[in-house]
Amino acid sequence: MTGHIHEECGVFGIFAKERQKVASTAYYALFALQHRGQESAGIVVNDDGVFNTHKDVGLVNDVFSQETLEKLGEGNMAIGHVRYGTTGTGGRENAQPIVVNHLKGNMALAHNGNLINSYELRTELENEGSIFHTTSDTEVISYMITKERVRTRSIEEAVLAAMGRIKGAYSLVVMSPSKLIAARDPQGFRPLCYGQREDGSWLIASESCAISAVGGHKIREVEPGEMIVFTKDGIKSCRDYCGQKKAFCVFEYFYTARPDSEIDGCYVHDARLQAGRFLAEEYKIDADVVVGVPDSGLDAAMGYAQASGIPYGIGFLKNKYIGRTFIAPDQKMREDRVRIKLNVIASEVKGKRVILVDDSIVRGTTSIPIVKQLRDAGATEVHFLSSAPKFLNPCYYGTDIASRDNLIACHHTTEEIAKIIGADSVGYLSLEHARHIAGTDGSEFCMACFDGVYPTEEPVETDKSRFERHISDNPKFRKNA
Amino acid sequence: MTGHIHEECGVFGIFAKERQKVASTAYYALFALQHRGQESAGIVVNDDGVFNTHKDVGLVNDVFSQETLEKLGEGNMAIGHVRYGTTGTGGRENAQPIVVNHLKGNMALAHNGNLINSYELRTELENEGSIFHTTSDTEVISYMITKERVRTRSIEEAVLAAMGRIKGAYSLVVMSPSKLIAARDPQGFRPLCYGQREDGSWLIASESCAISAVGGHKIREVEPGEMIVFTKDGIKSCRDYCGQKKAFCVFEYFYTARPDSEIDGCYVHDARLQAGRFLAEEYKIDADVVVGVPDSGLDAAMGYAQASGIPYGIGFLKNKYIGRTFIAPDQKMREDRVRIKLNVIASEVKGKRVILVDDSIVRGTTSIPIVKQLRDAGATEVHFLSSAPKFLNPCYYGTDIASRDNLIACHHTTEEIAKIIGADSVGYLSLEHARHIAGTDGSEFCMACFDGVYPTEEPVETDKSRFERHISDNPKFRKNA
Amino acid sequence: MTGHIHEECGVFGIFAKERQKVASTAYYALFALQHRGQESAGIVVNDDGVFNTHKDVGLVNDVFSQETLEKLGEGNMAIGHVRYGTTGTGGRENAQPIVVNHLKGNMALAHNGNLINSYELRTELENEGSIFHTTSDTEVISYMITKERVRTRSIEEAVLAAMGRIKGAYSLVVMSPSKLIAARDPQGFRPLCYGQREDGSWLIASESCAISAVGGHKIREVEPGEMIVFTKDGIKSCRDYCGQKKAFCVFEYFYTARPDSEIDGCYVHDARLQAGRFLAEEYKIDADVVVGVPDSGLDAAMGYAQASGIPYGIGFLKNKYIGRTFIAPDQKMREDRVRIKLNVIASEVKGKRVILVDDSIVRGTTSIPIVKQLRDAGATEVHFLSSAPKFLNPCYYGTDIASRDNLIACHHTTEEIAKIIGADSVGYLSLEHARHIAGTDGSEFCMACFDGVYPTEEPVETDKSRFERHISDNPKFRKNA
Amino acid sequence: MTGHIHEECGVFGIFAKERQKVASTAYYALFALQHRGQESAGIVVNDDGVFNTHKDVGLVNDVFSQETLEKLGEGNMAIGHVRYGTTGTGGRENAQPIVVNHLKGNMALAHNGNLINSYELRTELENEGSIFHTTSDTEVISYMITKERVRTRSIEEAVLAAMGRIKGAYSLVVMSPSKLIAARDPQGFRPLCYGQREDGSWLIASESCAISAVGGHKIREVEPGEMIVFTKDGIKSCRDYCGQKKAFCVFEYFYTARPDSEIDGCYVHDARLQAGRFLAEEYKIDADVVVGVPDSGLDAAMGYAQASGIPYGIGFLKNKYIGRTFIAPDQKMREDRVRIKLNVIASEVKGKRVILVDDSIVRGTTSIPIVKQLRDAGATEVHFLSSAPKFLNPCYYGTDIASRDNLIACHHTTEEIAKIIGADSVGYLSLEHARHIAGTDGSEFCMACFDGVYPTEEPVETDKSRFERHISDNPKFRKNA
Repeated sequence: MTGHIHEECGVFGIFAKERQKVASTAYYALFALQHRGQESAGIVVNDDGVFNTHKDVGLVNDVFSQETLEKLGEGNMAIGHVRYGTTGTGGRENAQPIVVNHLKGNMALAHNGNLINSYELRTELENEGSIFHTTSDTEVISYMITKERVRTRSIEEAVLAAMGRIKGAYSLVVMSPSKLIAARDPQGFRPLCYGQREDGSWLIASESCAISAVGGHKIREVEPGEMIVFTKDGIKSCRDYCGQKKAFCVFEYFYTARPDSEIDGCYVHDARLQAGRFLAEEYKIDADVVVGVPDSGLDAAMGYAQASGIPYGIGFLKNKYIGRTFIAPDQKMREDRVRIKLNVIASEVKGKRVILVDDSIVRGTTSIPIVKQLRDAGATEVHFLSSAPKFLNPCYYGTDIASRDNLIACHHTTEEIAKIIGADSVGYLSLEHARHIAGTDGSEFCMACFDGVYPTEEPVETDKSRFERHISDNPKFRKNA
Repeated sequence: MTGHIHEECGVFGIFAKERQKVASTAYYALFALQHRGQESAGIVVNDDGVFNTHKDVGLVNDVFSQETLEKLGEGNMAIGHVRYGTTGTGGRENAQPIVVNHLKGNMALAHNGNLINSYELRTELENEGSIFHTTSDTEVISYMITKERVRTRSIEEAVLAAMGRIKGAYSLVVMSPSKLIAARDPQGFRPLCYGQREDGSWLIASESCAISAVGGHKIREVEPGEMIVFTKDGIKSCRDYCGQKKAFCVFEYFYTARPDSEIDGCYVHDARLQAGRFLAEEYKIDADVVVGVPDSGLDAAMGYAQASGIPYGIGFLKNKYIGRTFIAPDQKMREDRVRIKLNVIASEVKGKRVILVDDSIVRGTTSIPIVKQLRDAGATEVHFLSSAPKFLNPCYYGTDIASRDNLIACHHTTEEIAKIIGADSVGYLSLEHARHIAGTDGSEFCMACFDGVYPTEEPVETDKSRFERHISDNPKFRKNA
Repeated sequence: MTGHIHEECGVFGIFAKERQKVASTAYYALFALQHRGQESAGIVVNDDGVFNTHKDVGLVNDVFSQETLEKLGEGNMAIGHVRYGTTGTGGRENAQPIVVNHLKGNMALAHNGNLINSYELRTELENEGSIFHTTSDTEVISYMITKERVRTRSIEEAVLAAMGRIKGAYSLVVMSPSKLIAARDPQGFRPLCYGQREDGSWLIASESCAISAVGGHKIREVEPGEMIVFTKDGIKSCRDYCGQKKAFCVFEYFYTARPDSEIDGCYVHDARLQAGRFLAEEYKIDADVVVGVPDSGLDAAMGYAQASGIPYGIGFLKNKYIGRTFIAPDQKMREDRVRIKLNVIASEVKGKRVILVDDSIVRGTTSIPIVKQLRDAGATEVHFLSSAPKFLNPCYYGTDIASRDNLIACHHTTEEIAKIIGADSVGYLSLEHARHIAGTDGSEFCMACFDGVYPTEEPVETDKSRFERHISDNPKFRKNA
Repeated sequence: MTGHIHEECGVFGIFAKERQKVASTAYYALFALQHRGQESAGIVVNDDGVFNTHKDVGLVNDVFSQETLEKLGEGNMAIGHVRYGTTGTGGRENAQPIVVNHLKGNMALAHNGNLINSYELRTELENEGSIFHTTSDTEVISYMITKERVRTRSIEEAVLAAMGRIKGAYSLVVMSPSKLIAARDPQGFRPLCYGQREDGSWLIASESCAISAVGGHKIREVEPGEMIVFTKDGIKSCRDYCGQKKAFCVFEYFYTARPDSEIDGCYVHDARLQAGRFLAEEYKIDADVVVGVPDSGLDAAMGYAQASGIPYGIGFLKNKYIGRTFIAPDQKMREDRVRIKLNVIASEVKGKRVILVDDSIVRGTTSIPIVKQLRDAGATEVHFLSSAPKFLNPCYYGTDIASRDNLIACHHTTEEIAKIIGADSVGYLSLEHARHIAGTDGSEFCMACFDGVYPTEEPVETDKSRFERHISDNPKFRKNA
């Protein structure tokens, strides 16, 4: 709701024992991963080596119809992708999976993450005469694998060799005519897991919710640095790149992942409940009711209520019919926009001191009308708690946080923020507690956006930012519409 | 979720002090009323006597675009409608509001409800040579008003005279070149209220949530039997038909209306909380967690938890991207369909005795996979509570309940139902408690679907059912595709 | 091409011996009648008394898809309609056929023509409390038939009685649950014929080209004033209104009808050839080549060439991909628009004296760039001949001629027109010759638009114009968007 | 009409003196080139080095809307493309122009033609690790240019170097951030010309009709083997590859090009007239009327009539509303399909001996119902003349002729063909006359499809056919949907 923070992409793959409607399975799985990307969606079906593709800009429901699913036909493998893209980069040509033909056949790729050396790799490739159709990391990865494929005996050797070259965050699903491969970067920034269905089909997905949505059970995470190869002869794991320090994006727990997904033994819902409980420890507020901002503030609000003993209330109704095509009020205040999406349930807050829990405060702009609604409905006090710590640093690994210029916490004290958004007080989860929300010592997390400790070298200036500056400086690189 | 129960339609009207973008206001209001009808939507703008209309089959978001809203243009009045229609009757021609030209000018109508004497009236009109383009009650009402309009001096006299002829449930918004009229049947089956915005615009809506969505405040209900006329000279109430025994549909509180709407002094959310509290009185179950079925079971579950002291849990995640175009799994069990829409959050229920609260049990079919999901996730016991009493009787006033053949409670004992849906026990709210959920003595409610006590004469066979039998018997009346 | 002259509508009906894909037959027939109306299209299928309808704004190809045709299903009768409508009257609600339910069943109507007493009839009906959803004559006719149907024993009696009340131009196809009826006004302004297919199906159509397009052969015209009833027992003709002075619209031959249609024994193509031959008699010009403006000027140009001995040339290529969605050049001259649609074939006209034949000159605006193209391509002289006489008078019977204000011939001499359009000379077919283009004495023609002799009483002010003035004077009647 | 022969693609480019609506110009030009490809369309606008692209499957009218043209924005250069593709190869990903990013900037390409060594080049590239997203020659050409671009100082050097590697038919338009380049293969198989508009803008197009459609005048053909570079400093021609034996596709005159286009000093219309005149020399038939099959048989029929003195008649009316979405009659004879598209004008042929002229006879299937229509309309004799010689050999340069198996002339004598299509006699233009239709000695033509003399080496098996066999043999290369 409050969000100008978005993770990039969800991936899925299926390797079935026999020819079947794998496109339908991928469709339902992408549906379950829709929260990870609403910009574009795509599926590639592998029918005995023939790749059939459909992808386009839009929600899964918009991109696929009964007819397009039927045209994709049957097969024994499929991969799928949902993509989030910032304005201007979301054209149809950037939709994934991407399919390439190379010397030794077809290959399809779906990628979630952000490389930190894509600019170097791209320059190197261009020097050899390579052409690029998009500005995406995925095309760079495709090239790296293809380059290796020319001199290796198998696709898995090529993927492994490419993993030695690409750096940063990547959770990959690669499909060749006869193999399905899952690969995850050595730090394991982005989630990736696999499972199986009763009919024996192997399933790979960004989150476990996609596996259960299609009737499978999760087996385990793909380990950071691991590559798993699925063939008709079974599965094979390669752990050549495992063993490095892990750096899983903690913000996946706070915001990105779906509450019903389980990551590394901890349900996202439980992590959020725990964040709420920690908030209750940190902020002991004398109040009458705890309410959450739908949807991602609800779990933490519940946690706060449980730990504090203050009653949990359903403070807002979210209009569930809001979709992409919603026509936003023009020439009006942001307040109107929020009111149409969220309406306060006055009887829950009237005459009460309210603790309001949201997942984060990024720019603060959407918090203002929410607090105002509570006051208009008769709340006597409004205490605003953010279940995540303060955003203070840029992310180089795929979470699209507004630039520092827009991060309210970079420019204002907590007290100032309270004044800006109209709350009686504002509180953020502490770094220490954030580290422990999944019930671990937190050493496996990347919390760079909160604490500025980057798990990879030279995070001072990303290739992405350099690349983008390069583009804006130089007409030849300016982005296409 | 469990619902094959749907109310028919939501209505809206605005009378502004001066020419403005009334189409936008109507759009946002219909958006807030979308839960009352997803079949079709329409808006008529009155620009100094010129009526501009746009309506079509689909959700508000599908029917209206920036372009169509602009084409509707500005005006000082507008009315809008969202419609629910059962299969086969939902064609474009049945979309409302309907606009008619008669002797003395234009008229537009939006209607929520169901007449019980439409067959007699229709026959009477046809005998005089009237032609009908639809099978809707709304066309009958248009005729009745027009017949009167020919011999009366004003539209309000005509509406009043027509109110003397039509019987059953109706909440009407009527727009003439210079007047906006709200009218409600003497029993007040369906809700209708009015309010005002800061700029002085008068607002009429089925529910208060639509008034607050567009920045207005509700003033009061339109009284059962009341007609209110809005003109540039102010508002005028006519209470000629007031004073009869009220019969407000109690199911509006249980299911139809939006939780953030307030009806007759009671928030729908509060009535549902109360239902949950009553359930806690009636069913004292030894359990570990109370979970609700999203969305309409959540409030009652919360009420149960509050009253019983058993912790409330977020047991399910509902996929918020499910829309009308979702492609349902074919040749598969209902279980799959539910799993894609709802996924259990296993950590909330694993190893626990679960109390599951839903708004009702109509046919029982959708309850089965929900209970199964809980068990698969490790719930040791599942006790299913319905926040509404047993459905035992048909509704003649606009709630589309499955025929008695499909009502599980008509054919099975509570114990049998528990066995069918796989629950350890099943409980329904008692009639006595249902009567009191809004904090009143309940004498103002119609509870016929639960208790069989019909507030109007001769409910044995409705005109609707007679009419439909007539249609199916006689080729000349068979419904068009 | 030059045309702001348009006839209103084409109609079609089929009565098959047994249940079959009558929707497909209607689709292909409407396709053949598309030139008579590009605004909207519709088909109603009668499947044993059940009427299935699909109609919408757009070309036949846009309105119908494989899917919609399949939804219309099979039946033993169908009627169809294509409609031309001037801006602002072309909404979806005006699409035909219209379907009505009345006391004794369903009825569907498709109508081509224009009543001259619709305002009186409408007023009469409104005084009785009738409501109108459109401003079309077709709705008035539906009412007139229904009024009679209440007191008669059969649909044909009702149609016959209605024919006694409605005045003006009408070619009607009426479908009841068991009968198909063709009816034509006593003057026979608009064409209507019937035929049969090898499988015994009866076919009714505005023009014979639609009958041959679906594999049938034309039997004869429906006579002016005749009603023909098709039932499973055969066909029955009623000639109660026959025998009045005929007044067939001669402009159907010049422009409206398709060249391959045969009307009253004369092919439209032949009439146009004859017009060209007459022009050669009237205008003996010393020239090198005769070219026609595609498409409707080609036949007359050929006739001129044949009669004069001057070679016929293909002077222009018309871009056949121009459709409704063509984006017109903005902020540019009309010249560009014409050049994109029509391109001169320079080698045919370079250094030559050119006779250019078009079907008419209405406003003259489109003639200017056509003449200029010829000159730019090197034509040394351009003589412009109109195969129709001068337009000088309004039409009250369905041909949409621009108001007198826009008719260039009302305000300018022939010499002035030549100067305006840049031609060396301009010539129009004489009235005397126009009368004889179909090889008859011409007594059966209405030529009012050319000669001002109206075949019905009181043509001074039409109901239509009165009605329209009424509408524009009175807000309550202003047209909806 | 009769055609299963299609040329592949039309190209366009504009280099304006200053920033303007070049997208609109390209749109109208593509509209004029639509006959060269109906499968997909695309435009790339160059706005000071920023490339904005829109392309999709469909006709120009379907692909572009006012909105998409506006989004393309302004610029000082644009290139455009319309594409014809056989079934299965026409996906969105194959739409042109293609845009690539390489080491030294952006590049956009539009291509018409067919390489004969694309398989070798592709293999070579793949061995170096290149990836391909399509199966098109255009992607191969992009790579060849890019490879050279890395080691050359300018785009024109790179194009020139690439021209030394690619073999076969190509008419190319290449756009770099600051230059527009036209290049044509040394044989000049496909047309390509350039011109200028009054505002100084340079225009490149496959045919002159596109230049005149946008208000320009053609200057001359791009010479076979020539490369022309348009920059803000003027134009520069490079003729390094000129001087080889020319081999212009003669079938462009017979069928592919538009009659109003002028190629190498001869209008296509005049060449077709000449073909008709030659036919009159070769086939002196005693007949009453000469009719052509619309559209491409009309010019030759006119030529025959002029030379023979037998009157020209308009024998058929073609339904101008037939579009891509036309729903073809299922389970019916081909006859129906033709009858809906073409209808005989009976009065022109009844009782007459008819000479029927069409552009060619490929498979003969569509000729059968056309001849039958003439006979059914009363023609006493039907003599069928093909304005092109017999198709006997495959084309390797971009004309999509049915394989030899389907070429009727490969399997039947002229007499047998007459019997098969139901004609009294059949005649083909002689090879000798075909060679001279453009008024030259014909030495500059490729007539391989007629005479089997191929202008390039090793035409025995094309790379295309090898490639395709390779694809069908090997799952990894099978075509995507």
